[in-house]
Amino acid sequence: MTDAFPSVWTRPSGRAADQLRPVEIRRGYTRYAEGSVLICFGDTQVICTASVEDKVPPFLKGKGEGWVTAEYGMLPRATHTRGVREAAKGKQSGRTQEIQRLIGRSLRAVFDLALLGERTLHLDCDVIQADGGTRTASITGAFVAAQDAIDKLMARGELARSPIRDHVAAVSVGIYRGQPVLDLDYAEDFACDTDMNVVMTGGGAYVEVQGTAEGAPFARHEMNELLGLAESGIAELVRLQRQALAAG
Amino acid sequence: MTDAFPSVWTRPSGRAADQLRPVEIRRGYTRYAEGSVLICFGDTQVICTASVEDKVPPFLKGKGEGWVTAEYGMLPRATHTRGVREAAKGKQSGRTQEIQRLIGRSLRAVFDLALLGERTLHLDCDVIQADGGTRTASITGAFVAAQDAIDKLMARGELARSPIRDHVAAVSVGIYRGQPVLDLDYAEDFACDTDMNVVMTGGGAYVEVQGTAEGAPFARHEMNELLGLAESGIAELVRLQRQALAAG
Amino acid sequence: MTDAFPSVWTRPSGRAADQLRPVEIRRGYTRYAEGSVLICFGDTQVICTASVEDKVPPFLKGKGEGWVTAEYGMLPRATHTRGVREAAKGKQSGRTQEIQRLIGRSLRAVFDLALLGERTLHLDCDVIQADGGTRTASITGAFVAAQDAIDKLMARGELARSPIRDHVAAVSVGIYRGQPVLDLDYAEDFACDTDMNVVMTGGGAYVEVQGTAEGAPFARHEMNELLGLAESGIAELVRLQRQALAAG
Amino acid sequence: MTDAFPSVWTRPSGRAADQLRPVEIRRGYTRYAEGSVLICFGDTQVICTASVEDKVPPFLKGKGEGWVTAEYGMLPRATHTRGVREAAKGKQSGRTQEIQRLIGRSLRAVFDLALLGERTLHLDCDVIQADGGTRTASITGAFVAAQDAIDKLMARGELARSPIRDHVAAVSVGIYRGQPVLDLDYAEDFACDTDMNVVMTGGGAYVEVQGTAEGAPFARHEMNELLGLAESGIAELVRLQRQALAAG
Amino acid sequence: MTDAFPSVWTRPSGRAADQLRPVEIRRGYTRYAEGSVLICFGDTQVICTASVEDKVPPFLKGKGEGWVTAEYGMLPRATHTRGVREAAKGKQSGRTQEIQRLIGRSLRAVFDLALLGERTLHLDCDVIQADGGTRTASITGAFVAAQDAIDKLMARGELARSPIRDHVAAVSVGIYRGQPVLDLDYAEDFACDTDMNVVMTGGGAYVEVQGTAEGAPFARHEMNELLGLAESGIAELVRLQRQALAAG
Amino acid sequence: MTDAFPSVWTRPSGRAADQLRPVEIRRGYTRYAEGSVLICFGDTQVICTASVEDKVPPFLKGKGEGWVTAEYGMLPRATHTRGVREAAKGKQSGRTQEIQRLIGRSLRAVFDLALLGERTLHLDCDVIQADGGTRTASITGAFVAAQDAIDKLMARGELARSPIRDHVAAVSVGIYRGQPVLDLDYAEDFACDTDMNVVMTGGGAYVEVQGTAEGAPFARHEMNELLGLAESGIAELVRLQRQALAAG
Repeated sequence: MTDAFPSVWTRPSGRAADQLRPVEIRRGYTRYAEGSVLICFGDTQVICTASVEDKVPPFLKGKGEGWVTAEYGMLPRATHTRGVREAAKGKQSGRTQEIQRLIGRSLRAVFDLALLGERTLHLDCDVIQADGGTRTASITGAFVAAQDAIDKLMARGELARSPIRDHVAAVSVGIYRGQPVLDLDYAEDFACDTDMNVVMTGGGAYVEVQGTAEGAPFARHEMNELLGLAESGIAELVRLQRQALAAG
Repeated sequence: MTDAFPSVWTRPSGRAADQLRPVEIRRGYTRYAEGSVLICFGDTQVICTASVEDKVPPFLKGKGEGWVTAEYGMLPRATHTRGVREAAKGKQSGRTQEIQRLIGRSLRAVFDLALLGERTLHLDCDVIQADGGTRTASITGAFVAAQDAIDKLMARGELARSPIRDHVAAVSVGIYRGQPVLDLDYAEDFACDTDMNVVMTGGGAYVEVQGTAEGAPFARHEMNELLGLAESGIAELVRLQRQALAAG
Repeated sequence: MTDAFPSVWTRPSGRAADQLRPVEIRRGYTRYAEGSVLICFGDTQVICTASVEDKVPPFLKGKGEGWVTAEYGMLPRATHTRGVREAAKGKQSGRTQEIQRLIGRSLRAVFDLALLGERTLHLDCDVIQADGGTRTASITGAFVAAQDAIDKLMARGELARSPIRDHVAAVSVGIYRGQPVLDLDYAEDFACDTDMNVVMTGGGAYVEVQGTAEGAPFARHEMNELLGLAESGIAELVRLQRQALAAG
Repeated sequence: MTDAFPSVWTRPSGRAADQLRPVEIRRGYTRYAEGSVLICFGDTQVICTASVEDKVPPFLKGKGEGWVTAEYGMLPRATHTRGVREAAKGKQSGRTQEIQRLIGRSLRAVFDLALLGERTLHLDCDVIQADGGTRTASITGAFVAAQDAIDKLMARGELARSPIRDHVAAVSVGIYRGQPVLDLDYAEDFACDTDMNVVMTGGGAYVEVQGTAEGAPFARHEMNELLGLAESGIAELVRLQRQALAAG
Repeated sequence: MTDAFPSVWTRPSGRAADQLRPVEIRRGYTRYAEGSVLICFGDTQVICTASVEDKVPPFLKGKGEGWVTAEYGMLPRATHTRGVREAAKGKQSGRTQEIQRLIGRSLRAVFDLALLGERTLHLDCDVIQADGGTRTASITGAFVAAQDAIDKLMARGELARSPIRDHVAAVSVGIYRGQPVLDLDYAEDFACDTDMNVVMTGGGAYVEVQGTAEGAPFARHEMNELLGLAESGIAELVRLQRQALAAG
Repeated sequence: MTDAFPSVWTRPSGRAADQLRPVEIRRGYTRYAEGSVLICFGDTQVICTASVEDKVPPFLKGKGEGWVTAEYGMLPRATHTRGVREAAKGKQSGRTQEIQRLIGRSLRAVFDLALLGERTLHLDCDVIQADGGTRTASITGAFVAAQDAIDKLMARGELARSPIRDHVAAVSVGIYRGQPVLDLDYAEDFACDTDMNVVMTGGGAYVEVQGTAEGAPFARHEMNELLGLAESGIAELVRLQRQALAAG
């Protein structure tokens, strides 16, 4: 598959190896949720809502702590060919569960659950259009929705101190035709050998690293390059989150 | 609930009794589907996609006919309070199934399935924001998505003659505080005694009538008034469908 | 299908257009239920039982109101060819759910739930033999079973005033070979263009109207004729309910 | 529970220890099934239908053999207090599965599946009213329905030789208040220490023996007495099957 | 299959007709369970664990009694060809449910549930390797695990008196090539006409008898021989249980 | 939890920071599977079987390639307190699905699926006893079972060339009380801030890296130390795999 390289290496999108797709973060996308964001990483579009519920799951009852959890879904025709509707099939795929568990863990990493109090913050990430990187866009957008929801609770006087300790954002990196690249789109994701999702805080620490060699296993030096690309991409995403939140 | 009328009857939205909410029909809303429409009936927003698949369900195999079917869903936070995600719960509610069966029947009523050939047209109606009338907006928008998908098949030369015989659109009517009104929003739907969904063709014939007395049963003369309101509302919706389709 | 009319229009059963099938209502059909009725609309036979439970669903707890709900089923060989057993398949079909929701709404329309007190009345409608009209026979029979159950509660002194405000009954109407007819049997239902189920009270008000054009859409004047037929049919069914209940 | 015996031992029904309840076998109970029987063992009433399908399960495809299988169900209010509807719950209980597997094995024991040809005989046993012994009534009634279905196939010339080799019938026996009794009704079943279901052929051979000590374990001599009671009860049931089938 | 007998009757394993397979009972097989036993009946190997939980199922709440229940499973490749994993399929087969209900009833037959107090004893029987007789090995092994769990509760002072009234063990018997044999292995089970599982107490009384004629029905005298074989086999198994428990 | 450090840092097990638990690999653990291994990482014990099936999943039909897939399960009492049996609950948890997807991907990374031919290799990893690291033990043991299965196919002449390109093994690393450690047991896993599972080939290339900060996010230099520990641990595991396979 990777045998016949064109003589000059280019990405399908023409981007530089370390270039993100155009990112758009629209706050207040729907009316009812405490936080509601449409995030676009190029053609990937995800609606992220944050909903506050005044109770916690059974395993936390009476502990004075809150919970942050996520659900992920994809409209059947978000993709090139129509996929099955999970509600109609009667179960979520393993992939869906893996992604929503990842989103939940990533957001919890920047929350002080004791400061949240006995509340659950539900993050719903629904993919309207998919062109690679839906899970990283989901995490990055869900953070903004979560921040809006927390700001609303503070404005109403329901929270005295913010339970959010830092930003969190995510990006994918991979080895496309032998070269490490940032923020894979579908054309690259489909063809690449290695795909890694990295989640980091605003302070530059790791929350999650999930790398998979889909074709040839990768070497330690490639790992290092990938981590470097991710670090700079996430720094840029955090800057864009701050910008969107400042826009008020 | 309906005891203490204000001295002057008004609708919560200030609309006249026979006035639709502002309707918006945006074609080409997402990239991959053969037809993709965002339809808004006021604050109710539904993404309707039409996907063509080159096979038919088992009961039609080898009969030379096509099939038109629909699925319906709602994002968990499309509503005032977050609802359960049906994919997570592992089953579609009775309400969801009722609605998607209604959408499918309504669209099939204007299709010549023999002209469609051995293809399935999947209509996916996903509610992004709900403020009453999601099923009528879904039918009205799904028709436009279906028309776009059929036009695409014809442009590609895959169909010689259009299998679509007429427009189809839908609207709700009800008795709000004693008076028949057109196109109920959530505030009215919640409080009204009778709620009726009417589906009609561009030619003015009935496809479906589903009326339910949620409070007091209703009389024959009220039925007649409701049907009259629906007829004029649907004529207006068909005009808006034509306008959107003409816009190219 | 409807091309080759015989020169003289007749119904498969030889009935007049406005004639019900022979109706039989046998009370006390099984021993344990508070109300138990076998109702026959011609060859359609449904066992309707009413069971009283001294608690309410969670959403009504502590409100001092009762609940009336229905479940519907069909024996696998109630029909011409054996159908799948829903319990074996592990889920109720969309059709089953639609019907049982309709039965529940219809019966609730004539109940004062506050007078019922914190009790649930479960109506089980199980079709032993199906020849069209199973949902309308179910509603008509379930009312009689419900009345028997309420009478038993009053006789035991558990209820001081009856929560039942009026009779409720249902019938189907449709357009068979171009002509509106009352109470479709399977042969007519299968061939007809339009099928409408109408639910009305003893006082002649509408509770539900559900009309579907399965073939050609129908015009307003046909709608009016259908409603007229239904009205007279339901008046007769209510008379038969009274007769059965009087028989003691 | 069994502490305070009345001074004279009697069965709740007043029957002798070796006396069956009144048995009724009504053939042709519903219209569509190839065989349809209502069987009553006293107040226990079961509708047994036999349906012929011209195909076999995957594991038998192309082997030239047929299959005989059974499903069992109970109407929710067949019992003293309303039980859950298995279709609504979304699964059959372990008890239901155990019973339907037993019915299927019992009927297969008297079938020559090669003579049946590539057909499936579905036996549906649906309990309308339950007063103990529903599985034994089901087996006994299902045999008659199966015989009627086979006779119909032979009359139509679809089978040249009957695949039925012998009668099969079933009865329960148990130890009630210290004494072995035949054909337990609910009052006895509830209170008894040991409950055994015995299935035998017309020729007097064993097909199934399923005995359970629900209270005190039982001794070998009790086992022998129980088997003797069952043997005479089944001989009587086979006589009643023959009588019903002869009645034409 | 049984047509062509070798001139001299032998069992596939070379055992005498009344001979058990080598039985091994290893206590303390895994670390965490209150009781944990690996039991081998020849090549059949089952891990039986007993787990104590300090609560009871809802139907026993507040009655001061305990409960004993069992679950049964088989590793997918415990058998000659890989079977489906029930967790992946999303449901337990009818066979699995039948077996776990049998194990639960058998163990309850020797428990005084009032003496157990408000506790549940969960018996998990997981088949590592299957060569016939997995349910009888499960019952025999589960008893030893249960005894270990109860001894642990008594040693900790949580129980003053043992709720175990007697041993319980189980064995299969059947008619292999015309001759009754004890403790069928898979080769015999597959080929035999009749298969009977017998559960008895240490005192020699019957708890369960489940005999099935898979081929030709069997006669009363065969029944008697089978019961005799089972009785001696179970006496030997109880001796082995005592030996294992004495080994400390 | 990590506040009160003992003055001297030690691991609960007393191991050095870079020390694996004692590893045992027993081949031929059960009789029927083409490969069957019991692998122990200290008190963690997993049965890994490899089963060969002569067909492929639908998406690979006719492509001349094979498939390698895995399923994972845990006996209910493999853990300190009894967990729910997934087969009884009717679904696999998100965690189970995540793990079995990881095992499948890891093994496929060292397989040439074209050389495998149209066969599926099923790897079943069932945890008998769990003390941390069940997924890494599963991968390491599944490789040995897979090698045995492939050797059997080659010995039978069904494969001319081995489709296995390299070894694959896995280990966990984490930050326990501030210090990176190798091969976490349950006591460490429960208390640690960061947990990373690393899967590598015999040649020292990465197949998967999955790191999660369960408490404080971790820095780049910690990441590097963790990767170094994992590299040496996996080299040792591969040596142990070779030793076990050589033992014949």
